[in-house]
Amino acid sequence: MNNVQTLKGFRDFLPKEMRKRQYVINTLKQVFESYGFEPLETPALEYAEILLGKYGEEGDKLMYKFKDNGDRDVALRYDQTVPLARVVAQYQNELPMPFKRYQIQPVWRAENTQKGRYREFLQCDADIVGANSPLSDAEIINLAEKALEKLGFSNYKIVINDRVNFANVPPLAIATIDKLQKIGKEGVLKELEDKGIPASTLDEVLNKKPTENLEKIIRLLNNPRVVFDPTLARGLDYYTGLIFEIEIEGYSAGSVCGGGRYDNLIGMFAGKDIPAVGFAFGFDRLVEAMDELNLFPTDLATTRVLVTVFSDDLRNKSIEVANKLRENDINTELYLDDAKMEKQLKYADQKGIPFVVIIGPDEAKNNTVTLKNMKTREQQTDSFPVIADLIR
Amino acid sequence: MNNVQTLKGFRDFLPKEMRKRQYVINTLKQVFESYGFEPLETPALEYAEILLGKYGEEGDKLMYKFKDNGDRDVALRYDQTVPLARVVAQYQNELPMPFKRYQIQPVWRAENTQKGRYREFLQCDADIVGANSPLSDAEIINLAEKALEKLGFSNYKIVINDRVNFANVPPLAIATIDKLQKIGKEGVLKELEDKGIPASTLDEVLNKKPTENLEKIIRLLNNPRVVFDPTLARGLDYYTGLIFEIEIEGYSAGSVCGGGRYDNLIGMFAGKDIPAVGFAFGFDRLVEAMDELNLFPTDLATTRVLVTVFSDDLRNKSIEVANKLRENDINTELYLDDAKMEKQLKYADQKGIPFVVIIGPDEAKNNTVTLKNMKTREQQTDSFPVIADLIR
Repeated sequence: MNNVQTLKGFRDFLPKEMRKRQYVINTLKQVFESYGFEPLETPALEYAEILLGKYGEEGDKLMYKFKDNGDRDVALRYDQTVPLARVVAQYQNELPMPFKRYQIQPVWRAENTQKGRYREFLQCDADIVGANSPLSDAEIINLAEKALEKLGFSNYKIVINDRVNFANVPPLAIATIDKLQKIGKEGVLKELEDKGIPASTLDEVLNKKPTENLEKIIRLLNNPRVVFDPTLARGLDYYTGLIFEIEIEGYSAGSVCGGGRYDNLIGMFAGKDIPAVGFAFGFDRLVEAMDELNLFPTDLATTRVLVTVFSDDLRNKSIEVANKLRENDINTELYLDDAKMEKQLKYADQKGIPFVVIIGPDEAKNNTVTLKNMKTREQQTDSFPVIADLIR
Repeated sequence: MNNVQTLKGFRDFLPKEMRKRQYVINTLKQVFESYGFEPLETPALEYAEILLGKYGEEGDKLMYKFKDNGDRDVALRYDQTVPLARVVAQYQNELPMPFKRYQIQPVWRAENTQKGRYREFLQCDADIVGANSPLSDAEIINLAEKALEKLGFSNYKIVINDRVNFANVPPLAIATIDKLQKIGKEGVLKELEDKGIPASTLDEVLNKKPTENLEKIIRLLNNPRVVFDPTLARGLDYYTGLIFEIEIEGYSAGSVCGGGRYDNLIGMFAGKDIPAVGFAFGFDRLVEAMDELNLFPTDLATTRVLVTVFSDDLRNKSIEVANKLRENDINTELYLDDAKMEKQLKYADQKGIPFVVIIGPDEAKNNTVTLKNMKTREQQTDSFPVIADLIR
């Protein structure tokens, strides 16, 4: 076989990367649950007809669609919002309302790949379904912020707007005005002119004030990081009220979180309007931003101690000590092959394991354990409880 | 749309079920890491040619295979062993050896569905790659056992055998003898006769003793739960030495864990033999067995307290108290809609939230908080720290 490789746009996550991702996932889950959000998972494969619901032609091109062995048209999960809409319709009598759920699963998109854009990536959504109060909008932003804080971010900006502010602006103009930060006022004016749109359109948007709805949300949030920006435009065919994005200072690849209120979508299968507000974290961006800003704990590598095997007849002694260390909540590796002590110590060094335990004939006889600190290379022989304490 | 439903063999996991699954996953991860096993994830989609590697015709029929938009033959992950073999080949210079990894991801099989058999299910594997000592075999069994113990199982049997014991037994006979527990000695003898195999074959197998290799593993394990059974046969075209299964007493749907040594498979892409030993938990069976034996903690529902909203002007006060509770590591919901206090209390009852917090005009003025215990219906008004302590 020539092609021992992954498909373009698909990634393996080796242990070092996995540990970072698990750290982020666990932190997010913990914060989401502290707000009473509940976990949900849906299948990777669904009827294509369902998943296409919201996306029409775009979905037709970018979805992984195929016929299964039973000749059904099926597709891979493209987002987590349409499956949520299906779940809300299918279990409407079982779900508590408002239904606050989070969902962290991969999605698949047959897009052109580029830096930071993959065909398989983790989506990380939190939504409140069945509540339309400004308080629920504020709660969603509050939640996103607390998650970022818990991950260690301290400098960020929460940019908000109301979709209603674009009600009378032509879509062509919105796409241009949304680029204000990127291409500047001159750039926007030039592009508007090229499109034959009056230059005054920009000022009209820039002069917009927060809507009454937005004012309420801002008061509830009472947060100096919240900034009103009348040019912020996202998913305008989708959102119906609040829209927001969170930008990390010092991380330039783009916003790490975006969301808003969308009151016309979740009811698509239930046959009635069901209000909803939510956000998605850009998971890969979060991990990248944490890397760049050095926010990961230094001790994510988890093995604390390697228990070596001195000789064949002392093997059971080593197993016993390894098991006792694990029972004391100390992450412990046992050296598994026949090898000289030197090679065993080298293995600990290679893997960055900070302590090594040695049980030779003297230790076995005296019921002691020798501990070697791999950094200082110092050794100490003592009873098991003393050694266990030293490792902790 | 008529079909608002999932595909046959695919499942939604609503919060109640998700919490159980997450509890099992987190427990397994913790035990795996306490043994120095490291997390790995591979893509859902790979080149079909790679995934078919081990499975040939069986895979051709049961894999979800299709052509992607770039006309590549791709397939959904069918197991986690072939991707592990690819990873070992692709990153052989980066991976520490022995490479001890665990992997917990869904796999997809286009099988006929039946009770307990799904088309999408979670696989949960732990393997040691690059070590061929009896100690590594013992370590794998030790790991599986500790995981079960940590989940709360206390009565189980670890049945072991050596694939070598079947070296001279015809495959047709093995399939029959493997059914000894199910159909009894009479049944096996009858089936052997029907197949034209001498009845003595059964006795030959039953008289087999543990191999020298197995004797070593048994001595290292030194565990009364380990039972040698010469009729245990599993994956005989796959395993090369130790094979084992773990059976839970009082759970009859089948073994919850199976594994063994397979020294000829992991090297399939690397172009050399690489020894390996590992196991897979039947994740759905584990969850079902824990349910049946009542091993899940009773407090998996995580919200401790609902903070109600007394009136419009006291909304910010409620937000403030909710946030303070969360900072004190108390999982807290905020009531999000406009509603009478009665309806808010009812919501807490419906969701089984044990405490409710009320901040009315008096509490706001006196900087206190009222706590209602939803079980006893008793109320108490006090300062925030006292109330926070009561909730904990």
